[in-house]
Amino acid sequence: MSSNRLFNFSAGPSMLPLPVLEQAAAEMVNYRETGMSVMEMSHRGKAYIAIFEETKTDLKRIMDIPDTHEILFMQGGATLQFSAVPMNLIGKTGKADYAVTGNFSNLAMKEAKKYGEISIACTSEDKNHTYIPEQKDIKISGDASYFHYCSNNTIYGTEWKYIPETGNVPLACDMSSNILSGPLDVSKYGLIYAGVQKNMAPAGAAVVIINKELAGSEHALTPKIMSYKAMIDSDSMQNTPPCYTIYILGLVLKWVEKQGGVEAMAKLKAERSKYLYDVLNDSRMFIGCAEKDSRSDMNVTFRTTSEELDAKFIKEAKAAGFDTLKGHRNVGGMRASIYNAMPVEGTQKLAAFMRDFEVNN
Amino acid sequence: MSSNRLFNFSAGPSMLPLPVLEQAAAEMVNYRETGMSVMEMSHRGKAYIAIFEETKTDLKRIMDIPDTHEILFMQGGATLQFSAVPMNLIGKTGKADYAVTGNFSNLAMKEAKKYGEISIACTSEDKNHTYIPEQKDIKISGDASYFHYCSNNTIYGTEWKYIPETGNVPLACDMSSNILSGPLDVSKYGLIYAGVQKNMAPAGAAVVIINKELAGSEHALTPKIMSYKAMIDSDSMQNTPPCYTIYILGLVLKWVEKQGGVEAMAKLKAERSKYLYDVLNDSRMFIGCAEKDSRSDMNVTFRTTSEELDAKFIKEAKAAGFDTLKGHRNVGGMRASIYNAMPVEGTQKLAAFMRDFEVNN
Repeated sequence: MSSNRLFNFSAGPSMLPLPVLEQAAAEMVNYRETGMSVMEMSHRGKAYIAIFEETKTDLKRIMDIPDTHEILFMQGGATLQFSAVPMNLIGKTGKADYAVTGNFSNLAMKEAKKYGEISIACTSEDKNHTYIPEQKDIKISGDASYFHYCSNNTIYGTEWKYIPETGNVPLACDMSSNILSGPLDVSKYGLIYAGVQKNMAPAGAAVVIINKELAGSEHALTPKIMSYKAMIDSDSMQNTPPCYTIYILGLVLKWVEKQGGVEAMAKLKAERSKYLYDVLNDSRMFIGCAEKDSRSDMNVTFRTTSEELDAKFIKEAKAAGFDTLKGHRNVGGMRASIYNAMPVEGTQKLAAFMRDFEVNN
Repeated sequence: MSSNRLFNFSAGPSMLPLPVLEQAAAEMVNYRETGMSVMEMSHRGKAYIAIFEETKTDLKRIMDIPDTHEILFMQGGATLQFSAVPMNLIGKTGKADYAVTGNFSNLAMKEAKKYGEISIACTSEDKNHTYIPEQKDIKISGDASYFHYCSNNTIYGTEWKYIPETGNVPLACDMSSNILSGPLDVSKYGLIYAGVQKNMAPAGAAVVIINKELAGSEHALTPKIMSYKAMIDSDSMQNTPPCYTIYILGLVLKWVEKQGGVEAMAKLKAERSKYLYDVLNDSRMFIGCAEKDSRSDMNVTFRTTSEELDAKFIKEAKAAGFDTLKGHRNVGGMRASIYNAMPVEGTQKLAAFMRDFEVNN
């Protein structure tokens, strides 16, 4: 870790691998002797198309995405997908099922109500989203066009440990905060989407992975730029894509592969989170906010015995180089977001800091 | 001009000021001792909010935007606005007027037809969009919710030299390819929007400048992220904005101001384009594609006496360091896009190259 860089526990945008930033800086003014920055390249030119295609190919290989599925690069983050998913997919039956396990899945559900009849298949609202419902508690409607869930709840620090079984109903998943963090059977999904600003790239794009069979029956009022069919047909280039964000994603993918791919990411995330959860398991001062079997390896939520002590901890942690640890207002306390680019050293040192803090307070 | 950088005549994405790229590179890994890259900052954190607010304030001052209007940073480029404009504005009467003077205004018009009744107020299609209609040829419907036009036609190389007079019908303008290129009376517009990837920043955002009175009556099926009202109410932060793109826009704005603001941009664009139009006026080989009084100062379209000679010119120009001069397939020939960041030296040298080419061929 470069001595003047902080351990940044922001929930997103969030840390990027240092070698990626260094390479981006080195290539900024003149990308590999093209005579221009990636920011300045025509998106239809050879140099940029090479970057774009390589990024797509790398993502397909790293995530083991089957040929049945297409990768799209879109704008508007996951939030635009909250609208795009129902606009594109709900037409089949006019109905869809939503799991509500946090803030973003709730926003997605509310937005979908504009476009069809929504059933809440399960919710963890009864315990302020501190847990993930079990398979037996999910009610799938036989005539739903799709079932939507959010695989990791950034604010509450919970993560689905299983892929819901939904029979013939296609699975649609907001994977913004744990995509690329481990191996995944993409073939089980009709649609995966992710805002890139947590595990993939700087803010400004969403990756959409769609089973091509699901595209093509969008609502008549769907903006053309939001039509999955039109995006597939144009290879994500109906208009100028967010070129530079995709370039950084490409650099991040090279970095992921160099570390050992998604298998290595899974190993690292377990190692990274264990340091913090070990403290929570041992401590009398620090209390985990999520139920143990639902704990996220991407966002660790915790608090102390009082709000005053929380504030003291956050302040002293910041002074010690652990940044952006304040929890979301819906939960309070602290949140350590520890995505792929957080060095293991970051949670190891934070855990030591927490143990010291407990001794001293 | 750095000796190893090309003069890049791409229509967008396009050149950025070299000092902006150099500063971005220098600040990439650790932005002004914050311990992180701008790419990694929480969009709700102090450091990023300062960048965001300063960019907004600078744009307001540089463009002299009145308090009646709000600046929004959105994603999806101008193309998403092709849908957002009618979804938000057409509800008043269900009708709108469109001027069709090129490819993008035509796409905007077609998209708007999904949401209401569209009248073509004027079109230059009869002469393949080589000219801009006169005020007397624009038919305004008294009951239009707005009149939409595109102030500069990138593909055809034409530019509106006047602001259309539309009485009580609000003006909506796609200014993607000439925003910030000179002084503008923003108060005359109900809505201005621009994809940033030509005169402002790398691709990945659109700037929207809206008279606040026009917001708030969007179609019920408008995605929330596309609602101007919701964007105004959240100060463009319903979700994570394209943070890094906005940061680069901020650097570009500082550069614009250092050059002398939009007055200086207007002077430079006249100087820059004059070198090329002087060649077209004098030459027997090079022929301007647009009618003289409609010529754009941002995109200079021209051809030679044959397609073979066009190809030879493009090839030799590229070898001499003048990149991306091939015209759009709708027009053929050549196009030199010369936005704010193109050094005057770029067109001066291209003009000299053209004169030499004519002598030698």
